[in-house]
Amino acid sequence: MDKQKVIRAALLGYGTVGSGVYALESRLKDEIVKKTGAALEIKKILVRSLGKKREGADPSLFTDRWEDILNDPEIGIVIELMGGIEPARTYVTEALKAGKNVVTANKDLLAEHGGELLDLAVEHGCDLLFEAAVAGAVPIVRALKQSLAGAEITEVSGIVNGTTNYILTKMSEVGMDYGEALELAMKKGYAEADPTADVEGYDAGRKIAIMASIAFNSRVTFSQVYTEGITKITARDIRYARDFGYVIKLLGIAKKEEDGIEVRVHPVLIPEDHPLASVRSSFNAVFIRGDACDEAMFMGRGAGKMPTASAVMGDVLDVMGNMVHSCCGRVGCTCYKNLPVKKEEDAVSRYFLRVQVSDRPGALANIAGVLGNNNVSIAQVYQKRSENGVAELVIITDRVKERDFNDSLTVVKGISVMKEISSVIRVY
Amino acid sequence: MDKQKVIRAALLGYGTVGSGVYALESRLKDEIVKKTGAALEIKKILVRSLGKKREGADPSLFTDRWEDILNDPEIGIVIELMGGIEPARTYVTEALKAGKNVVTANKDLLAEHGGELLDLAVEHGCDLLFEAAVAGAVPIVRALKQSLAGAEITEVSGIVNGTTNYILTKMSEVGMDYGEALELAMKKGYAEADPTADVEGYDAGRKIAIMASIAFNSRVTFSQVYTEGITKITARDIRYARDFGYVIKLLGIAKKEEDGIEVRVHPVLIPEDHPLASVRSSFNAVFIRGDACDEAMFMGRGAGKMPTASAVMGDVLDVMGNMVHSCCGRVGCTCYKNLPVKKEEDAVSRYFLRVQVSDRPGALANIAGVLGNNNVSIAQVYQKRSENGVAELVIITDRVKERDFNDSLTVVKGISVMKEISSVIRVY
Repeated sequence: MDKQKVIRAALLGYGTVGSGVYALESRLKDEIVKKTGAALEIKKILVRSLGKKREGADPSLFTDRWEDILNDPEIGIVIELMGGIEPARTYVTEALKAGKNVVTANKDLLAEHGGELLDLAVEHGCDLLFEAAVAGAVPIVRALKQSLAGAEITEVSGIVNGTTNYILTKMSEVGMDYGEALELAMKKGYAEADPTADVEGYDAGRKIAIMASIAFNSRVTFSQVYTEGITKITARDIRYARDFGYVIKLLGIAKKEEDGIEVRVHPVLIPEDHPLASVRSSFNAVFIRGDACDEAMFMGRGAGKMPTASAVMGDVLDVMGNMVHSCCGRVGCTCYKNLPVKKEEDAVSRYFLRVQVSDRPGALANIAGVLGNNNVSIAQVYQKRSENGVAELVIITDRVKERDFNDSLTVVKGISVMKEISSVIRVY
Repeated sequence: MDKQKVIRAALLGYGTVGSGVYALESRLKDEIVKKTGAALEIKKILVRSLGKKREGADPSLFTDRWEDILNDPEIGIVIELMGGIEPARTYVTEALKAGKNVVTANKDLLAEHGGELLDLAVEHGCDLLFEAAVAGAVPIVRALKQSLAGAEITEVSGIVNGTTNYILTKMSEVGMDYGEALELAMKKGYAEADPTADVEGYDAGRKIAIMASIAFNSRVTFSQVYTEGITKITARDIRYARDFGYVIKLLGIAKKEEDGIEVRVHPVLIPEDHPLASVRSSFNAVFIRGDACDEAMFMGRGAGKMPTASAVMGDVLDVMGNMVHSCCGRVGCTCYKNLPVKKEEDAVSRYFLRVQVSDRPGALANIAGVLGNNNVSIAQVYQKRSENGVAELVIITDRVKERDFNDSLTVVKGISVMKEISSVIRVY
């Protein structure tokens, strides 16, 4: 290049991540030219209202009109950081149709409409990159799409929600109960005022849908993901789990099996020597199993202003390199298969079951008999006698179809010695 | 594409990894077309001698003449899996000059001549990819070059040699001594007949040189890496380390400091709650620290036939995608800075020091005094009385310049109560 090329981009949204991306762009100015062969200029920033005072960026950059960006032919990259389905979906669609490349951190959008948007990107010769949408600064999207493309991935499982991992870590390491740990997470800024999407596993569900789609080359949407949150986990479960050699984590699990894809989010007992077991606090980690690559794990900051901004910026630099070399739109949708997603009840799991029973001779035999009659075999059992005539029984089962386990649980509930089913948690 | 595009490649070498790549290519035939838009054909395989009987590939593919490959205009990708500097350097150079893309797993070559070869690749518009050269199936090269390009990396440290990690794991978990563990590693195929390059840290040194070059955008060659192996580590050191809350690992460490790059390989005591501490057996892991991305870690199989072949194949697919879209040579040498590499003695470390002293009153005070006079302050100390008039003293120091520590050690050696300096190991 004789004359310095300048690539212009627009930010959609100037919240936590948006202002982080802007700050990073200012800090990296010279580096960006060396890394990509072009300079980057953030030309416009779309916000909902112009009234609010904003730090960091020149006020003249802000606009509340999407048309100002869409119709500006100089703007080659749209960086979508608004979150949510609409209006993000409309903006991204229109940007791609206008031949603009898109970088997004929007997991809600990708987990439901990733397929159509990636097809649109290819159709218009544009890049649509979304590394930040899955696990923040953990570079799992590029690893799955490119580095591990030579292996057949059979499992992607991960701790992909920092809020719940922080809560479970506090419950596990300090002995807090769920409510106490959630309150602390809110105070520390790890949990939002309405923590539902995190604690019920919806956030993790969106991420595992995206990862499953890439890993298995087959579209999986969030609506196909079975989700179960951590609200029923007690400090007592965590202590028992430890006695059996496990830690409890909220895991997104995606497996490719002979009869289809299993994809789900729920709490699990993980053996304490498994790499995922040592992922503490608000860290994220993704564990991968494949034929040629064997096992791998990627750990890092899954959220937060600068880690997310760094992932967004990595994608922006990639797009810039492609623009300089006129080869955008190379890596589009990789879902060239159409594997079925299995029903939750067809999945096979081991279970941790904690129940309260009348402390009478034969109570354990009674329950073990019912489980056995329903093809649920017991791997480990622990019985604790209490003073008031109630005994606590903790059972870890062998592998069983979830349907069969649920059926047996219905029968167990009806046994006369059964007082309460306190916990049912799957074992990884 | 109307007519199916076929991309032809040549393998240089048909040993463990070469035959793995060939097997993987056969297994992935259809997938490759879907992933890249072109079919892959391994057209020739270069071997030293045609006499040997080889499994897996059609005998007509083999040749012992490099010219057959170099002068075949149909061959667009050369996959170099011979290892060592020559003739690999000549072949890779000639291939790039002939406009052929190169994928290599050759760390020896990259760690010394990476700069010149990457420049050559850019000059001729070719790709030169080498994911497999660093930590096998751990996709660290692409992560550093692309995903983390938006962050300023300040540290890359890793367990990048599976042989030594296997040996140290056995010493640590089963209490084996070094010789015993090495013998087992050989029996299991984790160590070669001549284990020097592994146990002396040369292999790890090559890998950390490559990673430092990419992470800090500044060329670091193997000859600039300080290396120290694991041959002097004893089971006794490992036990003491554990008592202090550490595990011992062979670490490649690269840090960007204000006055230059620190790059080295040596055993270190790692706090047992650090993510690297839980990386067991022959696994590799790379730990990264940066401004925006914070901390991240990547773990996986660092060696072995299929994991390495999978990393090679990931690069081959990337090159094929670039060929289909006519945009090879985009990501060349990223060393646009020229930071100095610091001298080893200017580095700052904490130390674990195990010594034998005469069991006389004041022995500890004596040694502590000498250390103190040389600006070495003591963080933790443990003294064990023995029967024969000799006491064992274990000291962990605060941070100290290596030069100052070595000076103080010279003085300590001359103290009358000093019997033996048994171990000197750095603390991470």
